Amino acid sequence: MDRAAESFRSELLARGLLIETKVDGLYGRSAPYERVIDALDRLIVQSDVDQQTISLRFPPIVPRAELERNGYISSFPNLIGSVHTFTGGDEEHAELRELAEYGRNYAHLLQPAEVALCSSVCHPLYAMCAGVLPEGGSRYEVYGWCFRHEPSLDPIRMQAFRMHEFVYLGDSEVAHEFRDRWLEHGCDILRGLGLEVGTVVANDPFFGRAGRVLAHNQLDDVLKYEIITTLDSYETPTAIASSNLHRDHFGRPFGIQTASGEVAESACFGFGVDRIALSLFSTHGYDPDRWPSSVRNQFWS
Amino acid sequence: MDRAAESFRSELLARGLLIETKVDGLYGRSAPYERVIDALDRLIVQSDVDQQTISLRFPPIVPRAELERNGYISSFPNLIGSVHTFTGGDEEHAELRELAEYGRNYAHLLQPAEVALCSSVCHPLYAMCAGVLPEGGSRYEVYGWCFRHEPSLDPIRMQAFRMHEFVYLGDSEVAHEFRDRWLEHGCDILRGLGLEVGTVVANDPFFGRAGRVLAHNQLDDVLKYEIITTLDSYETPTAIASSNLHRDHFGRPFGIQTASGEVAESACFGFGVDRIALSLFSTHGYDPDRWPSSVRNQFWS
Repeated sequence: MDRAAESFRSELLARGLLIETKVDGLYGRSAPYERVIDALDRLIVQSDVDQQTISLRFPPIVPRAELERNGYISSFPNLIGSVHTFTGGDEEHAELRELAEYGRNYAHLLQPAEVALCSSVCHPLYAMCAGVLPEGGSRYEVYGWCFRHEPSLDPIRMQAFRMHEFVYLGDSEVAHEFRDRWLEHGCDILRGLGLEVGTVVANDPFFGRAGRVLAHNQLDDVLKYEIITTLDSYETPTAIASSNLHRDHFGRPFGIQTASGEVAESACFGFGVDRIALSLFSTHGYDPDRWPSSVRNQFWS
Repeated sequence: MDRAAESFRSELLARGLLIETKVDGLYGRSAPYERVIDALDRLIVQSDVDQQTISLRFPPIVPRAELERNGYISSFPNLIGSVHTFTGGDEEHAELRELAEYGRNYAHLLQPAEVALCSSVCHPLYAMCAGVLPEGGSRYEVYGWCFRHEPSLDPIRMQAFRMHEFVYLGDSEVAHEFRDRWLEHGCDILRGLGLEVGTVVANDPFFGRAGRVLAHNQLDDVLKYEIITTLDSYETPTAIASSNLHRDHFGRPFGIQTASGEVAESACFGFGVDRIALSLFSTHGYDPDRWPSSVRNQFWS
């Protein structure tokens, strides 16, 4: 971890904004921190001027079959959270208790449950949309908890964090427009909060040898843009939002069709809510009551 | 599933209040449903007149070591969600991809991560409170997602649901008072929302042969009360809140001491937020705009 991340983490913990746990990248959140998160949430919802957007909320777990079908387990196996539970009887229970008591590995006594941790808040939408979309496609707004297994002491890289996403499913051209319009709109919102942001063409962190090809293709086809900002004293910029074209990545495996009978394409724009909150603390200081009035007025007036 | 639960589930899905997934007990939530959840959240926070309460929010995952140390894995192994991830290389990745593609079991290719799903929203507090408490003890308010692996088609029994808890850590007598005061206060709040509620002495669903003794002891010592209500046409009542005395169950393993140097005792009161929302729909109908004005005024005025 570089020195800037170390000092940022120390400040956030010392001021009680985040609460440390024994697991790297897992934090409790204080009321002042959550006040910023909630304000950001309201601002993001209000910023959507599209009357047709449907708001939905999903739990932090998704059906395992969906993560298998959307390719996430194949492409990002190192980031997943597969959920396992105990289905044995009294005998296996005695063994489990002993192993758990001594902090030893009891994975062999557990069975995979029907669920996995949610990796992206748009994931549960696609199975739900199987079938034919309405004329003009569908627009959704979703917000919730995501998990990615990448333990780190840099507070910007959390294992459990919140994403707020806007998603379009339908025609290819509209998906393109949606992606580009939200990229611009997202930049405007973040600049309006006093953050210095830029955009870059980016790729997802596909795993291993097979993943290198996928990452190259994603870059070549300019499917993903990230909105980046550089936190105080950090050497490298941090992605705080992204705007993505999925083509038929979800439409095909989940059997989603447009009203005219083609395989639906999709696009999503995601705000990294915890990362944006952290950027605001880094930029404007640790006391939100002393943030620039232009920010406070948008958040709490 | 009895007929009342079946018909309740059908109504909730047909009206789009909940969104079905392929996993029993896992639902998406609509905006009208979430509007009730958010109103309930605000009402619950406002109902706490204690000036010393500290508000905290935790992610839906907790350090695995805490679930081992607080006895949850030993006592409720069948309800846990242990989180596993992939730590292999390209060779194991190829095997994983093939198994995942065909929906086969790939658990042997995964390793336990440092976390598990959160089973009760008060759990992360105890490790955090290790050490000496301030004079008079500590009071917390926590709200978040819980997971319990009990797949069911009865909408009242969800695998992922929200709990809103008030927790006291400190002296034994104050813990007693706290538990009893919140039980009464919780009943008042729920009656004020037009729910017919009663209280019963209850036990947690401890697992297996060893668990029967623990359940008996909990009942004998009157450590747990549940607030129950009977949903429309249901034959059996449903617990929608509970008030619990933990004695030193958390204070001892997590090394929490009172200011006078004794092992801290604790108590918690938990609102089952999703269950309360479902009870309101069952009691007052599926359109919150037509609920009794006494409820609407508390929620949205």
